[in-house]
Amino acid sequence: MLEPRLKPPASGDHVSVARLNTWWYVACAARDLSDKPMPVRILGIPMVLFRDSAGRAAALLDRCPHRNVPLSLGRVSNDGRLECVYHGWRFDGAGRCTHVPALCNDRNPDARRVEAFPTREQDGLIWVLPNAAGEASAEPFALPLTQAPGYATVIREVSVEGTLHAAVENALDVPHTAFLHGGLFRTSTARNRIQAVVRRWHDRVEAQYIGEPRPSGLVARLISPSGGEVLHWDRFFLPSVAQVEYRIGEENHFLVTTAMTPVSDFQTRMFAVISFKLRVPARLVLPVLEPLAMRIFKQDAEILAAQTATIREFGGEAFLSTEIDILGAHIWRLLKRAEQGTLEAPRDQPEVEREVTLEV
Amino acid sequence: MLEPRLKPPASGDHVSVARLNTWWYVACAARDLSDKPMPVRILGIPMVLFRDSAGRAAALLDRCPHRNVPLSLGRVSNDGRLECVYHGWRFDGAGRCTHVPALCNDRNPDARRVEAFPTREQDGLIWVLPNAAGEASAEPFALPLTQAPGYATVIREVSVEGTLHAAVENALDVPHTAFLHGGLFRTSTARNRIQAVVRRWHDRVEAQYIGEPRPSGLVARLISPSGGEVLHWDRFFLPSVAQVEYRIGEENHFLVTTAMTPVSDFQTRMFAVISFKLRVPARLVLPVLEPLAMRIFKQDAEILAAQTATIREFGGEAFLSTEIDILGAHIWRLLKRAEQGTLEAPRDQPEVEREVTLEV
Amino acid sequence: MLEPRLKPPASGDHVSVARLNTWWYVACAARDLSDKPMPVRILGIPMVLFRDSAGRAAALLDRCPHRNVPLSLGRVSNDGRLECVYHGWRFDGAGRCTHVPALCNDRNPDARRVEAFPTREQDGLIWVLPNAAGEASAEPFALPLTQAPGYATVIREVSVEGTLHAAVENALDVPHTAFLHGGLFRTSTARNRIQAVVRRWHDRVEAQYIGEPRPSGLVARLISPSGGEVLHWDRFFLPSVAQVEYRIGEENHFLVTTAMTPVSDFQTRMFAVISFKLRVPARLVLPVLEPLAMRIFKQDAEILAAQTATIREFGGEAFLSTEIDILGAHIWRLLKRAEQGTLEAPRDQPEVEREVTLEV
Repeated sequence: MLEPRLKPPASGDHVSVARLNTWWYVACAARDLSDKPMPVRILGIPMVLFRDSAGRAAALLDRCPHRNVPLSLGRVSNDGRLECVYHGWRFDGAGRCTHVPALCNDRNPDARRVEAFPTREQDGLIWVLPNAAGEASAEPFALPLTQAPGYATVIREVSVEGTLHAAVENALDVPHTAFLHGGLFRTSTARNRIQAVVRRWHDRVEAQYIGEPRPSGLVARLISPSGGEVLHWDRFFLPSVAQVEYRIGEENHFLVTTAMTPVSDFQTRMFAVISFKLRVPARLVLPVLEPLAMRIFKQDAEILAAQTATIREFGGEAFLSTEIDILGAHIWRLLKRAEQGTLEAPRDQPEVEREVTLEV
Repeated sequence: MLEPRLKPPASGDHVSVARLNTWWYVACAARDLSDKPMPVRILGIPMVLFRDSAGRAAALLDRCPHRNVPLSLGRVSNDGRLECVYHGWRFDGAGRCTHVPALCNDRNPDARRVEAFPTREQDGLIWVLPNAAGEASAEPFALPLTQAPGYATVIREVSVEGTLHAAVENALDVPHTAFLHGGLFRTSTARNRIQAVVRRWHDRVEAQYIGEPRPSGLVARLISPSGGEVLHWDRFFLPSVAQVEYRIGEENHFLVTTAMTPVSDFQTRMFAVISFKLRVPARLVLPVLEPLAMRIFKQDAEILAAQTATIREFGGEAFLSTEIDILGAHIWRLLKRAEQGTLEAPRDQPEVEREVTLEV
Repeated sequence: MLEPRLKPPASGDHVSVARLNTWWYVACAARDLSDKPMPVRILGIPMVLFRDSAGRAAALLDRCPHRNVPLSLGRVSNDGRLECVYHGWRFDGAGRCTHVPALCNDRNPDARRVEAFPTREQDGLIWVLPNAAGEASAEPFALPLTQAPGYATVIREVSVEGTLHAAVENALDVPHTAFLHGGLFRTSTARNRIQAVVRRWHDRVEAQYIGEPRPSGLVARLISPSGGEVLHWDRFFLPSVAQVEYRIGEENHFLVTTAMTPVSDFQTRMFAVISFKLRVPARLVLPVLEPLAMRIFKQDAEILAAQTATIREFGGEAFLSTEIDILGAHIWRLLKRAEQGTLEAPRDQPEVEREVTLEV
């Protein structure tokens, strides 16, 4: 039927979406999963999570094979099985149907199954492999520092309307901070030339920033009131981890590892694990830092939603990059290779190493 | 364009929808139709109902042939014609345009028509054949007992998000009552083995339940405080009538005949005609029974909506049945045959007769 | 997937939409455009309007070429450039990117452009050509009387859910006024035979009404309390101007020129420029006339929305016309020719001249 039509300009139909279903993603924080069924969605697949009688996390397709009612509307029975609300069919964590109420002559119990997805509980997170066949390209990402002495760790969750790629690029992009978050993080007035060294390995890419002064914005002044040398890295790990590391002087270390889950093509859920060691005590810094971080996140979320709406309306992306879009293209190359099964073999040296000058 | 994609599992694209447009459906209760135009929808077709000057029910396509404004926005004029709100074109109950205001030289009055659908007023209901050509496979379903001495009759209307087949199966399904309506109707603790005898004729199917004790739930206790033998039948009649009959002892007889109207593929409107004769006076039972019945209905409506949303999201049904899904497959076979025009010839004996044991 | 399906009647898939992108349309009233970016939409194309440092109106595609965020979320910088909110890229009124913050080694500045659309400020309106290549079939429509001595002029804007053709036909249609606006404008009781003379030129069509008495409704009585001869013309000019002219006696002259902008196929924005000279002072008439005009407009907008919803639901139009649908078919012929590039050559005489009798 006739719909509003965009004539000029043509914009192809490329969208930076790779659907990597042989990699692990975070489904929820471990502390949030009880025996109450929890609906989640990964790569567009509706799943239901629950803990069985032994406390093990299970992930099933959120659709009863009997009459296709969502299993997440049901409950976990006394025997640790997930019971459908409609007719009471019960399923164990492996997806086997163990009970059909009112049925006397059960001729074919083995045929009754619901698809089950592998789960892993690790670093305070529940990871799920959105692949009922169990094919995995790697282990779940091991989070550093969560148990390190002297470090505090907090986990925060947020969702954005945007592709996984757009969310990762935004999280690891330096130039936008002076504009979108002007004053909060960096400011647009102070100007210093710094170097970024980009190194890409077979499954990750990193930008190391050299010569960066302490950012002049509010957040940076809070973390390090006395200034000092700044060491800063932005990193991406396949399939969906964005990591930002700051060292400011000897005493301040700040590591934000965000495991991103592609809920669907244009929805990304972010599990940010923030581990830090600061000169100032955490309990003094957090109450100030958290509202600021949420304000920064809100600005990013609004931009990503507007970007996504525009891309969907035009039927595709039409991006134009410069050399200071430092990581975006590398991340897309890794995602694309992973989708096509053409990742390079691991090596000791980076496969790409490059320098970029930028003014911040 | 890119949309959230479900990869595993594949679920074909079968949905249990048969579009039988040579059968009669209930459009509304007769008491609700006045000379005020009423929009209704059957098999996805927008119609407008009204009573003409003689009080006869008329059903026209709800689209003025002039400029395609819905006729239901208009009014019935003094001469019993339906008048469009935009330019005042008037139509009689047969769809003929009888007046075009401001037009002087009318060259082609017979060309101006709106599609009209046959109507029938019967048993307190307005029936419509959603077929402008008038082809009918049968007469409207004749409701039993509405005039029988000693019986009270009430009509109730509700709508559900679900295919006609899902709504009928739900209405005639016994096993779910112990779970979804646990405590209200049947309970999940008491267990008795009973027999169901299934009989299918060319245009209907019935399950007779033998050995069923009085259900232990609240509703059953209300109807028959003293217990007694229970006779119970569930029936489906083409194209869309679900009937539940209970006899408890000599004095209690309860017949719920629900004429279902496929509003669209995933929307079903239910006209339940409840005729009953009880030992306890109707005026004492009804105030208690009605809220309970509405609570049961609300639970069913929620499940059907969740089922429908899941089926639409997955792009089709993936149902797995056991032998205690007693009527669903038979109903679908009848609907499918009716759609394909391959119904069997009427016979004295059922074409299928089968026994099933179940535990309730 | 299965969706509600309309079986009878088939209605083709014609919709009266012509997408004329070599003609000028009004984007906004000139007084409403400041240096604050304003999102508008013409023929489905999202644009952003702003005034540069010299006060000139500029229209760019509302999508930053960098990461596809809407430019209308940004601001106009001190140097009169439009600055994207995300990374601060700046664009001049011609669409050239003049600044990329943080970029040091700019290798390809000329490649960074956003599509720009020609603009024209004229008669208190901002006109835009929705064609980045600048191809124009004609000049923007020159509004008469806006500067004429003795005339007052007001501009009003409203939006309707309807195709441009449906909105124009509605604005220039006489017969519906007695029904839809019964009592306000014309009434359905008084009956007079009048003549309409239709004249079509290569790029416009006009209906002149002869013998029309002063309409009996409230609006007409306000304008001309003493009655008098009525001269009345309805006119359409390609691509989208509807004009209604009334002369009542010597002293009253009323000209409503409505420039319609096809926002998208089913959304039309109307810029009504009302110039008038009345015996009664304007400041006395306007406070009474304006609420009445808005009430008439609201009735039209409701009908157009209902018509549009019906057409979209049926998947196309199925219109039936009589000879008193005086201008609709002519307007469609002109729009269609303009779309196909087959407009006739200009001539002194109308290419069509015809008389129609109607009863108002």
